[in-house]
Amino acid sequence: MFSGDYDKALAALILANSAKDIGLDATIFFAFWGLFLIRDPKKFSVEDKTQYEKMFGMVTPKGPEELPLSRMNMSGLGKKMLEKMMEDDDTPLLSNFLQEARNNGVEFFGCQLSVEVMGIKKEELLAEVEIITAQDYLKDALNSNIQLFI
Amino acid sequence: MFSGDYDKALAALILANSAKDIGLDATIFFAFWGLFLIRDPKKFSVEDKTQYEKMFGMVTPKGPEELPLSRMNMSGLGKKMLEKMMEDDDTPLLSNFLQEARNNGVEFFGCQLSVEVMGIKKEELLAEVEIITAQDYLKDALNSNIQLFI
Amino acid sequence: MFSGDYDKALAALILANSAKDIGLDATIFFAFWGLFLIRDPKKFSVEDKTQYEKMFGMVTPKGPEELPLSRMNMSGLGKKMLEKMMEDDDTPLLSNFLQEARNNGVEFFGCQLSVEVMGIKKEELLAEVEIITAQDYLKDALNSNIQLFI
Repeated sequence: MFSGDYDKALAALILANSAKDIGLDATIFFAFWGLFLIRDPKKFSVEDKTQYEKMFGMVTPKGPEELPLSRMNMSGLGKKMLEKMMEDDDTPLLSNFLQEARNNGVEFFGCQLSVEVMGIKKEELLAEVEIITAQDYLKDALNSNIQLFI
Repeated sequence: MFSGDYDKALAALILANSAKDIGLDATIFFAFWGLFLIRDPKKFSVEDKTQYEKMFGMVTPKGPEELPLSRMNMSGLGKKMLEKMMEDDDTPLLSNFLQEARNNGVEFFGCQLSVEVMGIKKEELLAEVEIITAQDYLKDALNSNIQLFI
Repeated sequence: MFSGDYDKALAALILANSAKDIGLDATIFFAFWGLFLIRDPKKFSVEDKTQYEKMFGMVTPKGPEELPLSRMNMSGLGKKMLEKMMEDDDTPLLSNFLQEARNNGVEFFGCQLSVEVMGIKKEELLAEVEIITAQDYLKDALNSNIQLFI
């Protein structure tokens, strides 16, 4: 998962959870903007970061609820409307799908190059996230039946 | 197909049609914004919808010709320019590619969760579209050689 | 590669280079906005183009350094910030990753329909780029283990 959009994160998590539901293994490799989904909102830190990394960390979304829509976000209005529609249908919100994925045992990996460039510390991410390289991701992807770039 | 962009819809349909041309089966699973491509412009209805669903249905694109470009759309100017360039090269427009896909027997599925959340009725979509779950999509994708998230 | 964004081009090239590093073959099929990455900045020409094609060629990015970020570009400010962060971590810039891919023997193809519609001439692209159809791309993709739409 490369995107940091609320709607694309929904798609990724719903697919991962559905895969688990039919007995498949599912892994998500979070790179670049995708890492915002697995930031722990309570663990943001500025320690040991450059000025740019501090600023970048502050202005970008921390965790699922802060992600914007990929389109029609309209400063959050469009997103609020979508959330209302989801609630009306008793559809869980993004943070629920994220929690479900964690309970389901969907494996979460973070891209090493991305966390280094963005100055995100392992401690700022969900506890179970392991940091791996793009090479490691590819080796894993080689053995899977479906690979999607979201 | 997750995106609701004119250019990405072009890519999806050209790939699906090219697959058919070389003897492969092709299936498109439309989720979220992607559903706008297969709305029948003549069948928009507000019946049996919540206020949010009505509003959402009205402000979003109905069918291929209303989709915006993913970038350089410039309130439709960029899209018009692209369409002119396509015509100059005798390239069919998006609605032609869509019709070709339908004639070719490309299979169209709609995402159940998406239509429920957005309040889109089966009757508002192209007649042949079948509604399936993400689990059904994954089972189908497992048996295919190429899967792309567009 | 369909996108013409700096960050998505980074992702595509890093994956292709990583694939080469672990002994895999890697091919990139550039379509639509993706073609901007492999335009040779020194070879832009208006010869034998329609008015629209000239205009389009002029206002769109020519080569890796002119690509914008997919989000937070902020008229180039966000991109400059990202580049600073990459330099601070001794991470190469996009043009370096592109050069590495060329040195590594990552194969580059351009989409025939895209170059025709956009009026981009083969001579304006990096010298090694071969122009192929979507059908050719699919035949190649059928024989590969990982396919991503970026």
